[in-house]
Amino acid sequence: MAKDKEFVKDITLQSEDFSRWYIDVITKADLMDYAPVRGCIVFKPDGYELWEACQRELDRRFKATGHRNAYFPLLIPESFFQKEKEHVEGFNPELPWVTQVGDDALEERLAVRPTSETIFGYMYSQWIQSYRDLPVLINQWANVVRWEKRTLPFLRTSEFLWQEGHTAHATQEEAMQETEKMLDVYTDFVENELAIPVIKGRKTPSEKFPGAVATYSIEAMMKDGKALQAGTSHFLGDNFARSFDIKFLDKDNERKFAFTTSWGMTTRIIGALIMVHGDDRGLQLPPRIAPTQVMVIPIGPAKARERVLTAAQEILATLASTGIRIKMDDRDDVSPGWKFNEYELRGIPIRLEVGPRDLDQSQAILVRRDTSEKIPVPLANLKEIVQSLLDDIQSSMLANARAFQRDHSKTVHSVAELLQVVRSEHGFALAGWCGDDACEAHIKTETGATSRNIPFDPPEHVSTCVVCNQEANHTVWFARAY
Amino acid sequence: MAKDKEFVKDITLQSEDFSRWYIDVITKADLMDYAPVRGCIVFKPDGYELWEACQRELDRRFKATGHRNAYFPLLIPESFFQKEKEHVEGFNPELPWVTQVGDDALEERLAVRPTSETIFGYMYSQWIQSYRDLPVLINQWANVVRWEKRTLPFLRTSEFLWQEGHTAHATQEEAMQETEKMLDVYTDFVENELAIPVIKGRKTPSEKFPGAVATYSIEAMMKDGKALQAGTSHFLGDNFARSFDIKFLDKDNERKFAFTTSWGMTTRIIGALIMVHGDDRGLQLPPRIAPTQVMVIPIGPAKARERVLTAAQEILATLASTGIRIKMDDRDDVSPGWKFNEYELRGIPIRLEVGPRDLDQSQAILVRRDTSEKIPVPLANLKEIVQSLLDDIQSSMLANARAFQRDHSKTVHSVAELLQVVRSEHGFALAGWCGDDACEAHIKTETGATSRNIPFDPPEHVSTCVVCNQEANHTVWFARAY
Repeated sequence: MAKDKEFVKDITLQSEDFSRWYIDVITKADLMDYAPVRGCIVFKPDGYELWEACQRELDRRFKATGHRNAYFPLLIPESFFQKEKEHVEGFNPELPWVTQVGDDALEERLAVRPTSETIFGYMYSQWIQSYRDLPVLINQWANVVRWEKRTLPFLRTSEFLWQEGHTAHATQEEAMQETEKMLDVYTDFVENELAIPVIKGRKTPSEKFPGAVATYSIEAMMKDGKALQAGTSHFLGDNFARSFDIKFLDKDNERKFAFTTSWGMTTRIIGALIMVHGDDRGLQLPPRIAPTQVMVIPIGPAKARERVLTAAQEILATLASTGIRIKMDDRDDVSPGWKFNEYELRGIPIRLEVGPRDLDQSQAILVRRDTSEKIPVPLANLKEIVQSLLDDIQSSMLANARAFQRDHSKTVHSVAELLQVVRSEHGFALAGWCGDDACEAHIKTETGATSRNIPFDPPEHVSTCVVCNQEANHTVWFARAY
Repeated sequence: MAKDKEFVKDITLQSEDFSRWYIDVITKADLMDYAPVRGCIVFKPDGYELWEACQRELDRRFKATGHRNAYFPLLIPESFFQKEKEHVEGFNPELPWVTQVGDDALEERLAVRPTSETIFGYMYSQWIQSYRDLPVLINQWANVVRWEKRTLPFLRTSEFLWQEGHTAHATQEEAMQETEKMLDVYTDFVENELAIPVIKGRKTPSEKFPGAVATYSIEAMMKDGKALQAGTSHFLGDNFARSFDIKFLDKDNERKFAFTTSWGMTTRIIGALIMVHGDDRGLQLPPRIAPTQVMVIPIGPAKARERVLTAAQEILATLASTGIRIKMDDRDDVSPGWKFNEYELRGIPIRLEVGPRDLDQSQAILVRRDTSEKIPVPLANLKEIVQSLLDDIQSSMLANARAFQRDHSKTVHSVAELLQVVRSEHGFALAGWCGDDACEAHIKTETGATSRNIPFDPPEHVSTCVVCNQEANHTVWFARAY
């Protein structure tokens, strides 16, 4: 159709320049704007709404697994960072420091939090005295700041929004279980709400969180074949407990260090949502997370307007009453064609068209955003069919993303082959790794790919290291990454 | 009762030392802890949960009045503050400045936001071009920092949480309507959800927001007779529009400055909730905002435990299914008496006791937190009676707070009388005011009371200024304030 072609012109094609496509889409869909502060964005209402939807679904899961929300201070004294050596080294270069208030210099510099293990650690040392006080299961919704060198809207910004869970446990086993449980919670959220398939696994030592014993991640594949770390869960052992003296009197009357975990998911997940599902026509939102699931567009000539609007209002009310998130665009100063394009760009899962000829036949037209299929539906069956269509779109989006990930993943046996997969074939490479940091670093230098994680459940086990050909102790996913 | 007396000992009596009572209650009810950062607190889960309840109810109202949420950067360039003269003078002394990142000095200092008019103003100047872009109705949930000299948990902390609405309109009238509408939204929330009666009015010029044309507030009376400004709504005229060049092409083809508003409510409202309703036994939460409305406490001897627990579980499930927020404390290592005290302290509106003798009579005992009244209720009627009891507690808490406010408010005709009312009688004084800053300042110096607001609807109009005896242009509420 002419209007589609005209429309496509506005957005760079994915195949032409994926990065420009991304910026075009998030700008035109009005999700964000660049802020006048280095590397920061403004989350505009349509972008922030996506985060609110993520918050709602994550928060529900956190509470269902026994966690409660709290709020800890933004500004953290410098001395706190000094207590955990790896931690301070990891974060120091990115820390913004408050050094003055009004005209007065502060005695001790305060960091704008990049993450809150240190201040949680300090408070937990005050709160935890006995095994009866454990576990402590707290989550925080907050803003954090990390002065990253290269920034990209949603994916890597100087300030971002996230949740950070911080838990303390009596035993190592229990803390490990928590670490894994929260990785499962993230997986469930990302796969079932966002329709993004992920690879669960453990980070290599060079990629783990500064101060953690082990970091676990879920990794997703974007449509350009690059990886995005969608969530992390850290087993901190007793590292932070020792640094902050989190000790408790155990049942056996001995004073012991607690074991702690932390886990986080950030607004970068919005970037993943766009890069996994978006296409040349714009965003594509999975129905379960879409703030608006159905957009009603009344069509037809002016003389039929009143009749159509009345019917459309009725449809809106009926569907809304069943919990479907539905809106109508009944403006008469823009054409239906313009609206079709607009809501395709914005990724609304279903468009519902209704005009006088439809009403004559007691029907409406549903148009799927994912397949562009047009489905005439009797008004009497609308509720059931819209609901089942939303379910169908959700599962087929996940299935498509899964197929894409599978088709762009390959086992490799040489660095040349790895380079081929991550560069030319735009995919993930599964490779053996001896466990030596040097071999991992070599891959990064030669191919630009980093180890994503050591998957819990790899499609196969590779027996020799892709670099040194020695025995592989691990099978690892490598990819270029955001 | 012996246990009550024993319990009361732990909390300073309100009549003895209201400030110590407040700290005792918020500490023992586990709402907060002092953070190791000057003037900051940690919002512990039970305290944060109150904020979440406030957020839910406010957010619902904001959205119902056409506002959408967004998120703007935390760090604001120094130059932005210079653009509005009154604004920068008002906030400068309290601003924390980020001057370094890692080891590098920044070229321009960045303020940690104390409020966001400046950055909203800048972005709005980019977004608003035509009358078609107006109104812009955005709210932000955020943390802000103001380095206050004297701090008090919840009421005044260096960092606090709030929402800040920022709107832009084509005309002065529309912006004024918005300012008033949001004051009404706050009033509705505070009176109907928090059961706190408020006085709506306009701030005197000396008490208005730096940069505003007019500030409107709702003022509440705490149980010590001091005032707490519970929410403010500012009509900013075109002040910020001129400073940030927010201009639009109007229908008449002329470029005009927009008119803006801002309005905010903060976590200090939690302090109000405590100080308006709390008593010598602890917190008292209005049912509509209480995270837990009913606490089930099984009682009776060990041999009846299984029977009682089974019945209690059933009661819990039945009431929960109707949307009542209900929990059970079935621990057997603490006594029912301890639990009674604990949940009185925590302010749960209704305690539901059930023991074997109750079950023999197919009943449970409801105990009201507000009146301590014990009400035996047939199990068959529990749902209806609990719901109506919650409604009754809600309205009687509002009525009591209203009566308290009325009984502690008095019209005065001299500064001596004003001093008497705000100091000895612990109340609000209604007085005439000529409108001269000097008279207002005199009252502050002589009595410690500040003008709270010029009420829209005063109980009476006073004709002469309480200081200079000249004609009063305004009738004003004066009180000592938090």
